Amino acid sequence: MIYADNAATTRMSKTAIAAMLPFLDEIYGNPSSLYSAGQKAKEALEGARQTIARLIGALPNEILFTSGGSEGDNQAILSAAAIGKKQGKTHIISDTIEHHAVLHTLKKLEKEGFEVTYLPAHENGIVRPQELEDAIRDDTCLVTVMYANNEIGTIQPIRELGAICRSHGVLFHTDAVQAVGHIPVNVKDDNVDLLCASAHKFHGPKGVGFLYAKRGVRLQNLIEGGAQERGLRAGTENVGGIVAMAAALQEAVDGREENAKKLTALRDRLIEGLSEIEHSALNGDAEQRLPSNVSFCFEGIEGESLLLLLDDLGVSASSGSACTSGSLDPSHVLLAIGRIHDVAHGSLRLSLGEDATTADVDEIVRCTKQVVAHLRSFSPVWRDLCSGKGNFIL
Amino acid sequence: MIYADNAATTRMSKTAIAAMLPFLDEIYGNPSSLYSAGQKAKEALEGARQTIARLIGALPNEILFTSGGSEGDNQAILSAAAIGKKQGKTHIISDTIEHHAVLHTLKKLEKEGFEVTYLPAHENGIVRPQELEDAIRDDTCLVTVMYANNEIGTIQPIRELGAICRSHGVLFHTDAVQAVGHIPVNVKDDNVDLLCASAHKFHGPKGVGFLYAKRGVRLQNLIEGGAQERGLRAGTENVGGIVAMAAALQEAVDGREENAKKLTALRDRLIEGLSEIEHSALNGDAEQRLPSNVSFCFEGIEGESLLLLLDDLGVSASSGSACTSGSLDPSHVLLAIGRIHDVAHGSLRLSLGEDATTADVDEIVRCTKQVVAHLRSFSPVWRDLCSGKGNFIL
Repeated sequence: MIYADNAATTRMSKTAIAAMLPFLDEIYGNPSSLYSAGQKAKEALEGARQTIARLIGALPNEILFTSGGSEGDNQAILSAAAIGKKQGKTHIISDTIEHHAVLHTLKKLEKEGFEVTYLPAHENGIVRPQELEDAIRDDTCLVTVMYANNEIGTIQPIRELGAICRSHGVLFHTDAVQAVGHIPVNVKDDNVDLLCASAHKFHGPKGVGFLYAKRGVRLQNLIEGGAQERGLRAGTENVGGIVAMAAALQEAVDGREENAKKLTALRDRLIEGLSEIEHSALNGDAEQRLPSNVSFCFEGIEGESLLLLLDDLGVSASSGSACTSGSLDPSHVLLAIGRIHDVAHGSLRLSLGEDATTADVDEIVRCTKQVVAHLRSFSPVWRDLCSGKGNFIL
Repeated sequence: MIYADNAATTRMSKTAIAAMLPFLDEIYGNPSSLYSAGQKAKEALEGARQTIARLIGALPNEILFTSGGSEGDNQAILSAAAIGKKQGKTHIISDTIEHHAVLHTLKKLEKEGFEVTYLPAHENGIVRPQELEDAIRDDTCLVTVMYANNEIGTIQPIRELGAICRSHGVLFHTDAVQAVGHIPVNVKDDNVDLLCASAHKFHGPKGVGFLYAKRGVRLQNLIEGGAQERGLRAGTENVGGIVAMAAALQEAVDGREENAKKLTALRDRLIEGLSEIEHSALNGDAEQRLPSNVSFCFEGIEGESLLLLLDDLGVSASSGSACTSGSLDPSHVLLAIGRIHDVAHGSLRLSLGEDATTADVDEIVRCTKQVVAHLRSFSPVWRDLCSGKGNFIL
């Protein structure tokens, strides 16, 4: 079994599991409690906050623990919008390839009277700084651009975008769910005001994440209630999950350079192999992309069948975002970078894990070639294209 | 060490941990994924949903997984308010001893123009059905009354309150965080439309809970994003946590009758022992209370010191809610049931676990007597009371 869907979720590392276990049935006190069993949990919680803060260049009290990336994105964007509204600023800038956690939150704000400009991500899947500069207005309160795309893996020029926002005094949020633990992220260097991450994308547990909010950026609660997280996020803290997240992030950052080097080589070998399939194309920029991400479109096939047959051959992959699988619509990301509807339907995302090998990559290539050929052999669309009814796009 | 703060959080049971572990590093696929590793996770997720639904008398698609009780309370109340608003109904009824997850959400709605009637909980900590009946108006859209109180342990007449709501066509929500797994809860019999629970209160993991919403009650998202949970709660599902929650609830319900019988006897022994302390009083009704809960006020002492000294003697307890510890204000619950400020400050909540013994109870009584006597020995307030400056309340 080759698991090539690490952008959807990852296996928890042994380190992260070992870090979590003691907090389930030994140090299980409520960190808000005064007695020693609670205070031990509190210390672990604050230790995790310090670790995470240090690893992204933040201060501990700039880190808020959440239930994951989506919650963080919602809270960050709604908070920035609330700050803007108070100042009479109701214009937001984002782009066309954001995750739905961002896009749907923006839709909600549009219904409330906010205006949103969606920058194009262009054919290479990358937002252009000059276009951000041009789009900023006097009433712009927030720019939200993801660090790296979950489907096509392209990395945005966050540092430049952040600098532009800072020079205009506009808050800058980035959904860094795919970036944190995988590529260097430093909130200070990157000029970021708000950033969200999710533990299960870097071998931590599902159901836990964090939100960085620069000192002075006033968050508003998404979840009201108790006074946890300085009154900004109610609910008993998931101590074990949080401690495991910190351990996983430390491990990911420690191994990042080496893993990135290895993965980049494997990624490029995979891209080279899949490029041998005729009428196929890589989605997104070949250079500015996550070390683990390969995204392809194959003409004349249907992505869902591709996945099911790959699964039969022992390869776990996806067509794009796991969050939208089950939807019959093609990916909004692929459409946004100019893939037409039919081509976008024939998509495959492969996201390698740190334990991937050359043999895995070669096996993925072999299986994909076999399955694509098989599917095309009885695809009416493919037959039409081959017989000259219609034109190949790729 | 005697842990007597199970209302704040519980130790995860061996069963729950064993249920969770395989989903961390074996069956770790994203349940939204099409391949078999994802589908196995999906099956486990849906199995957990069926278990939980069955255990509270609901249908599987009436159960939504959340990050805990606070998130559920927020989403349930905001959803009911949104339904009301569409119908021009902006009156809500609650009571004075709710958890802050409810009270703060109601405060937010009051700012948005909703009117909230807070029913008294009276001296015994119980809401009176007739007073609910009298408070319901034509524009009432929601009644929210907790199943059992987290501080004083009183159990509300949920079935009667629910029947009144149903007869008036008003939605009924109950924060059942302290009840589920501890006393019989059946959403159909109880006439409940919306109910929230949290796994870590019944020996499941922290950071996971569920929201029951009766079929036809349209929820609105608190967390926008991916299409998980039928599009009503975005974010990759915390599969391991959810499976563990279902296992913990099954175990809790299986053992409930026996545990309740045992705990009730221990509770009453504890109440009897603490009642021997002069100028003390039980908070809340002596009968209609959780089998595990004992809440006392002691005159002339300060709760925080009491807790710290009990901790030194090996007893973990709290003054009230863990969610508000750190606050210098006395408990809103104790004030609501008529305790004056000074008396409310001298509170102690003991919540026994299923593994508690008679020896534990006797030790708690011994330690509490010792600590109360010690604190009173140098309390100026106590000296004044004893010398006739001021009157004893209790």
